[in-house]
Amino acid sequence: MFKEIIQPRFAETDALGHINNATLPVWFEQSRRPIFKIFVPSLQPNDWNLILAKVEVEYTAELFYGEQVTVMTAVKSIGNSSIQVYQEAWQGGRKAAKGIATMVHFDHQKKTSVSIPNDIRQTLHTHHVENCDFTNQM
Amino acid sequence: MFKEIIQPRFAETDALGHINNATLPVWFEQSRRPIFKIFVPSLQPNDWNLILAKVEVEYTAELFYGEQVTVMTAVKSIGNSSIQVYQEAWQGGRKAAKGIATMVHFDHQKKTSVSIPNDIRQTLHTHHVENCDFTNQM
Amino acid sequence: MFKEIIQPRFAETDALGHINNATLPVWFEQSRRPIFKIFVPSLQPNDWNLILAKVEVEYTAELFYGEQVTVMTAVKSIGNSSIQVYQEAWQGGRKAAKGIATMVHFDHQKKTSVSIPNDIRQTLHTHHVENCDFTNQM
Amino acid sequence: MFKEIIQPRFAETDALGHINNATLPVWFEQSRRPIFKIFVPSLQPNDWNLILAKVEVEYTAELFYGEQVTVMTAVKSIGNSSIQVYQEAWQGGRKAAKGIATMVHFDHQKKTSVSIPNDIRQTLHTHHVENCDFTNQM
Repeated sequence: MFKEIIQPRFAETDALGHINNATLPVWFEQSRRPIFKIFVPSLQPNDWNLILAKVEVEYTAELFYGEQVTVMTAVKSIGNSSIQVYQEAWQGGRKAAKGIATMVHFDHQKKTSVSIPNDIRQTLHTHHVENCDFTNQM
Repeated sequence: MFKEIIQPRFAETDALGHINNATLPVWFEQSRRPIFKIFVPSLQPNDWNLILAKVEVEYTAELFYGEQVTVMTAVKSIGNSSIQVYQEAWQGGRKAAKGIATMVHFDHQKKTSVSIPNDIRQTLHTHHVENCDFTNQM
Repeated sequence: MFKEIIQPRFAETDALGHINNATLPVWFEQSRRPIFKIFVPSLQPNDWNLILAKVEVEYTAELFYGEQVTVMTAVKSIGNSSIQVYQEAWQGGRKAAKGIATMVHFDHQKKTSVSIPNDIRQTLHTHHVENCDFTNQM
Repeated sequence: MFKEIIQPRFAETDALGHINNATLPVWFEQSRRPIFKIFVPSLQPNDWNLILAKVEVEYTAELFYGEQVTVMTAVKSIGNSSIQVYQEAWQGGRKAAKGIATMVHFDHQKKTSVSIPNDIRQTLHTHHVENCDFTNQM
């Protein structure tokens, strides 16, 4: 399980007075960086071998400017060429959002999905969680 | 069905050379404005009576800077206090993303969901689509 | 003089109820696209031969969601390797912001500024304005 | 002098492979939070008594994803109702940008600028720097 501390930016609020909902995918992407590093150790765009197939975000409480947010990230499932990443965003003791991102191991030259190699698969397994709910870890 | 023309902004690209995936929720939110107006004719934050419960976005093709994007928006389903909005983003004849946003009619004072009034419900029905696929309309 | 119509996005508002000030550089960059095309006809990142040296933005009125913004763009001055671009953002008959962007014609391989070629210079001249104030054109 | 650590977000890169220039005003605004707190201890939008009159940003080196950025912030000058804030952004030992933000103490009800009260003025003085260059502090 990975933990990322996010400082909400004032520009990420919206006229409703809270953090704009479209900010969550930005924070979740940011917090998947340790997963990206497993696939792309250099984090260089030219080496990138992942595409994002799907994101889902459920909003369960408002998020505000002025207090840090903790994003927890874990591997939910590992398929042949794709994985699902589970994430939660917490602020002030409240779970404000949770999400699942489906990413595909991809060869950008051949424009095709590629099986996840065994070494990457093994590393991913060490970050796998059976029960997707981090409430007890907070 | 609502159609919104989006001009991708250069700042919305990312280091992978295409539109960053987290931009889609911004465009989809932007394109739900006609739905917002049904609930909140003034579009004033103080009158806002909606909360976003969930978004799902599936990415099916890359989006690029330099060419306009068409976002199609329709009502997918209407519940007692919530609705699902279906959206697609097209660029250059390709469907690049589709998504579903679940929104709840909400009383921000009482902090509780509220049944959708009949007049709003009827207007929503006129934007309801049975079959969520706009390929033939493009 | 170039005119760009901008539809403010809800995500571009902030908790003060108006468009966040940091959105203006995004809109101004977006509205410099015709200038970019003079230098980089393909608009392809690999062909990019400009760097941004400086931006200045003065804020003269609030900008709001729900009404389109017109950005006017012209060439203010042309130096040996750099140009200054002047821009104004108008909404509902009010000038809300003005700005100057200084851009340098640049060789990214050699990492050095490069004189602006004559053909580009001549095209830039056709978009030069003597008096930087578009109030009478609005 | 205030120091803020910024983690660049992947969504803040652009197709040129580096951090988009329009991100700097977002980071600088974020890093002015200690200044905001001097004027608005609650940081609540309803209590906000500042408007941004002008920003200037000079770009001196590229900024990249994957390495943290340090933003240094100090008070450059204090007028009757306005102040100038000086800021620098550093990454990996290089000064990548510097900027000046001019903010006005403002009564949003009366829509007029207001003299800066003495207690705020004194606090601002403790964060004033004579020489705007933080190179020796990095």
